[in-house]
Amino acid sequence: MTTESRIWTAALIVVGDEILSGRTHDKNIAQVASWLGVQGIRLREVRVVPDVMEAIIEAVNTLRARNDYLFTTGGIGPTHDDITVDAVAEALGVEVVVHPTARAILEDYYETRGGLNEARLRMARVPDGAELIENKVSGAPGIRAENVYLMAGVPGITAMMLDGLTGQLEGGLPLLSATIGCWVAESEIADLLRETEKAFDGCQIGSYPFFREGKTGANFVIRSVDDETLKACAHALERGLAAMGRFPVAGGI
Amino acid sequence: MTTESRIWTAALIVVGDEILSGRTHDKNIAQVASWLGVQGIRLREVRVVPDVMEAIIEAVNTLRARNDYLFTTGGIGPTHDDITVDAVAEALGVEVVVHPTARAILEDYYETRGGLNEARLRMARVPDGAELIENKVSGAPGIRAENVYLMAGVPGITAMMLDGLTGQLEGGLPLLSATIGCWVAESEIADLLRETEKAFDGCQIGSYPFFREGKTGANFVIRSVDDETLKACAHALERGLAAMGRFPVAGGI
Repeated sequence: MTTESRIWTAALIVVGDEILSGRTHDKNIAQVASWLGVQGIRLREVRVVPDVMEAIIEAVNTLRARNDYLFTTGGIGPTHDDITVDAVAEALGVEVVVHPTARAILEDYYETRGGLNEARLRMARVPDGAELIENKVSGAPGIRAENVYLMAGVPGITAMMLDGLTGQLEGGLPLLSATIGCWVAESEIADLLRETEKAFDGCQIGSYPFFREGKTGANFVIRSVDDETLKACAHALERGLAAMGRFPVAGGI
Repeated sequence: MTTESRIWTAALIVVGDEILSGRTHDKNIAQVASWLGVQGIRLREVRVVPDVMEAIIEAVNTLRARNDYLFTTGGIGPTHDDITVDAVAEALGVEVVVHPTARAILEDYYETRGGLNEARLRMARVPDGAELIENKVSGAPGIRAENVYLMAGVPGITAMMLDGLTGQLEGGLPLLSATIGCWVAESEIADLLRETEKAFDGCQIGSYPFFREGKTGANFVIRSVDDETLKACAHALERGLAAMGRFPVAGGI
């Protein structure tokens, strides 16, 4: 196996009662997924778990063992329901300690904002041995503990933490994709999709139907790590659709 | 334990490479979560898994065993990447069969739409012993197999399937919630939140910070199955915020 063919994987744990209640629509899954794709890392599984120690610990243990990286979002703020740091520390079998640099960052940030109180100091707590991930928005840093990356729940803050990590994680070839849209019922061209996928080694074709303006359509997303194979597969699908009297729309509908 | 105090739980499996790639933003988690809340059923865990048999089977086996209900979204269409029915059947240890009523529904639906081909007939396949869940949008029904409810990936179709299930599932007391917003850094009032939660038995308070218009604020969501306790807790929090010179906004910001 060459370096290029190694596939790097990640999992994501979204910690949050507010997502499980339906009150808040999660934005971190798509954000983390897209960012990982650019780093050449595949997001393999996501779990949304409640703000409950045992639930977080179980997910951390399972997912970090079978992926190169594990990300978490949520539960690293200053309030009583923020327990992700404690759960990750317990999963890793280490103590929770106050990180001196995190403390200094918070002291500086809150100097003109009412000072560092006990609640705010909670945001300097990390699993022993952890490193910080810079956050330019609100002071409180993200945390790397072994292969676990703890991010904020607020999507804008997570975006800044991901920005701080860009290019820092070892990854493989990014999974490329090409999208072809068509005003066709996917059930009419299921054979074409299956046969086209089979004909191009290492390509996957996903079929994503929709109903708009009273019409049936679908986007077909072709994925491959190899740009030439991807293009060849996309062209074959376009030709196949055209041969059936359908009009493929490059880039999707 | 009285009937009222029994807590009914559900889990959700989102089947979909398109969610894990970041290309599609999931809408089913919030939709299923909100619907379950109204039925008096708590969504306890969500997993997003790829279109891979083993991944779906593992999640089905784990989650259906520890919850009253398991929902899945995605992977029940007509194309080669639709494998949820096969995975659930394997998890349940039953064969996949063509459901005669589903076949009749599809024959009827496609009579004026080009007829029932092999791909479309895939949507009549169910785990042996399963029942159908009506879908008024596109013909293809949802499926109930033991305590597993298979829904579409397209959110509009899942909405119709949930509509067909409304009031059909046994649930407990719905978890009620009240939201109080405030232009305050949650780190300033962490003690108030923790103490207020402690003072009201069976209430949980979640703190959800945000940054808008250059200002720091948070919404505090109080949850309880008991309406009176909920209101008392909300009022105590409002009084506590006011006593600190903050202005609580009932209903949230």
